[in-house]
Amino acid sequence: MRLHPRTQAAKESIFPKMSALAARLGAVNLGQGFPSTPPPAFLLEAVGRALGRYDQYAPPAGLPLLREALAEEFGVEPEGVVVTSGATEALYVLLQSLVGPGDEVVVLEPFFDVYLPDAFLAGAEARLVRLDLGEEGFRLDLKALEGAVTERTRALLLNAPMNPTGLVFHEEELKAVAELARRKGLFLISDEVYDELYYTPSPPPRLKDLAPERTFTVGSAGKRLEATGYRVGWIVGPKEYMGTLAGMRQWTSFSAPSPLQAGVAEALRVARREGFYEALREGYRRRRDLLYEGLKALGLKAFLPQGTYFLMAELPGWEAFRLLERARVALIPGEAFYREDPPQGLFRFAFCKKEEELELALERLGAVVNSQA
Amino acid sequence: MRLHPRTQAAKESIFPKMSALAARLGAVNLGQGFPSTPPPAFLLEAVGRALGRYDQYAPPAGLPLLREALAEEFGVEPEGVVVTSGATEALYVLLQSLVGPGDEVVVLEPFFDVYLPDAFLAGAEARLVRLDLGEEGFRLDLKALEGAVTERTRALLLNAPMNPTGLVFHEEELKAVAELARRKGLFLISDEVYDELYYTPSPPPRLKDLAPERTFTVGSAGKRLEATGYRVGWIVGPKEYMGTLAGMRQWTSFSAPSPLQAGVAEALRVARREGFYEALREGYRRRRDLLYEGLKALGLKAFLPQGTYFLMAELPGWEAFRLLERARVALIPGEAFYREDPPQGLFRFAFCKKEEELELALERLGAVVNSQA
Ligand SMILES: Cc1ncc(COP(=O)(O)O)c(C=O)c1O
Ligand SMILES: Cc1ncc(COP(=O)(O)O)c(C=O)c1O
Repeated sequence: MRLHPRTQAAKESIFPKMSALAARLGAVNLGQGFPSTPPPAFLLEAVGRALGRYDQYAPPAGLPLLREALAEEFGVEPEGVVVTSGATEALYVLLQSLVGPGDEVVVLEPFFDVYLPDAFLAGAEARLVRLDLGEEGFRLDLKALEGAVTERTRALLLNAPMNPTGLVFHEEELKAVAELARRKGLFLISDEVYDELYYTPSPPPRLKDLAPERTFTVGSAGKRLEATGYRVGWIVGPKEYMGTLAGMRQWTSFSAPSPLQAGVAEALRVARREGFYEALREGYRRRRDLLYEGLKALGLKAFLPQGTYFLMAELPGWEAFRLLERARVALIPGEAFYREDPPQGLFRFAFCKKEEELELALERLGAVVNSQA
Repeated sequence: MRLHPRTQAAKESIFPKMSALAARLGAVNLGQGFPSTPPPAFLLEAVGRALGRYDQYAPPAGLPLLREALAEEFGVEPEGVVVTSGATEALYVLLQSLVGPGDEVVVLEPFFDVYLPDAFLAGAEARLVRLDLGEEGFRLDLKALEGAVTERTRALLLNAPMNPTGLVFHEEELKAVAELARRKGLFLISDEVYDELYYTPSPPPRLKDLAPERTFTVGSAGKRLEATGYRVGWIVGPKEYMGTLAGMRQWTSFSAPSPLQAGVAEALRVARREGFYEALREGYRRRRDLLYEGLKALGLKAFLPQGTYFLMAELPGWEAFRLLERARVALIPGEAFYREDPPQGLFRFAFCKKEEELELALERLGAVVNSQA
């Protein structure tokens, strides 16, 4: 008896694998993107209060109080919001709902790893548009993006602030994307799970403000509120499609966990009111700079991210497993974000970790990088 | 811009719809299958303790401590367990992993509503085998089951204790099913979310004990621990397939909510040790009898369930929405569990509700049933 061939999509993801190896080897884990500090007390308390009150099924579209809190955040009506079991489910359901066999979806490369299996499992083809990588870092080539659109293209999938590059797109770039989508009649999937993690003077522009009629914005309480294990995500999009998306997500996990939805609803309001995101950004900016300067001081080439809690840097000649073993530092190798021909010696560092951890990682890397030189 | 045709699977499920209508009309809700009392204190406390400790991503296969607790429950190794975001995701992932276009999966009718869209979304055909409905209630026709198996059949999907019929299969029946599956080389999906809710002298036999090499057992903490909103479910199956299933479920919701997994792990042990399930069954048996006797006293035909917290009864000439409006009692109409030609006037009653609610429902039904007579 054999499983269905589509299960070839099931290969073990590098992220949990690296975490498991890091734990086993006592390595500093700058691999998987989850914070090494607990979520804010106001979230823990809000969830605590929800236990015993929100214990049974939520509607597939989400608890009304969470849809309302998100509607306020995004300046839309609650009917324009569907709650999902993490942004992972949001992306899965969107690909299933927008594309199928014979269709294409354009994805920027390097990409967050779920986009490719999501397209594959929907039976569609992912057309990759590789970002230029120069001395200044990563850059979107709008001509290449337009060139990737064919008769079969049904959607463009963007991610900003972007994992793994830390890129934030300029309003002019997004305007060009919106214009392209409008001209070709395409949906836009905008993965904005790092929307509150930016180091630019003002918040990153949102595609939905430029093309509200065709944009699905994906978000995650896990990333905003430092609780990746709570599995509360969302889709914000044009009202006329949202009932159908809710109907689709009921078959994948029926609804997101009720007490965590209720806790997140309360915590989103507190976070906004009490300047939680400002403090979060400040802390991450400090850690970003610590890591960036530290890598530079080791003579390594690093690219300063404008958003997310990831940074890309080059460790020429190194390979992730050897690095893990020798330096006891877990990083995600660049090839995890490329389908083929990845740039050599590129690594993703997650800096959503304690400063001590970043310092220890730098120290350990310094030792092996120098010994090799 | 149109959504993909597969979104025709997205029709609004009758269950949340009835709940919403019931709430709006102040009706007694014997529709959707969730308890109207809170989960046990030991679960709430265990989850409370997990907050601040289990907040980040769990591995896709589940937190090790939950996999271990489930392995003990089912007498298997932890590698034979994959944790999912509710049994709903377990079923979705199994159908995606076992069948595809050109394949058939045999499903008993009346069925729990997710099986058909799950098969459809996997691109497979659901072959229905209708249970006989006689004076004595529902009965599986093993000849009809065997007759439904074709060259294309890859899996049989059974549910026992069975929603909506309350049926529990005898060991002899399951042996015949196991033998058929073995002879034809089929997988078995055994939906056992109501495994602890039985009114027979001994626990229902499990398919996995008769055909361990081919059986995937699906379960749910939501049903066992009275917390349908916690979204913790599981698949127990042959070890050689479980890594792949974990790899598939990482794309649907990545992992189940961590603090709820940790809380459930502890609560499963407490429940077993402290006789929670015995007490649960006793309470449900009392409510089952109350409802059954009450319906009989109204002159209605009702079928005594041997498991689950559902009971089927006939209200000839009634239709669910008219009943909701006139009697202010929400029930699920029989046709929700049939693809076509449902038996007329059949309704599912959920008795996982307070005794007062059951009594009030009987009183209200009595008023309209008699006024119509
Ligand atoms: C770009 C991006 N999108 C989506 C996700 C998934 O988010 P969630 O944990 O809410 O499923 C991640 C997680 O790392 C991510 O980096
Ligand atoms: C037979 C059956 N299977 C599966 C489920 C889904 O369970 P869960 O809430 O864990 O997704 C239900 C819920 O009512 C059910 O009745």
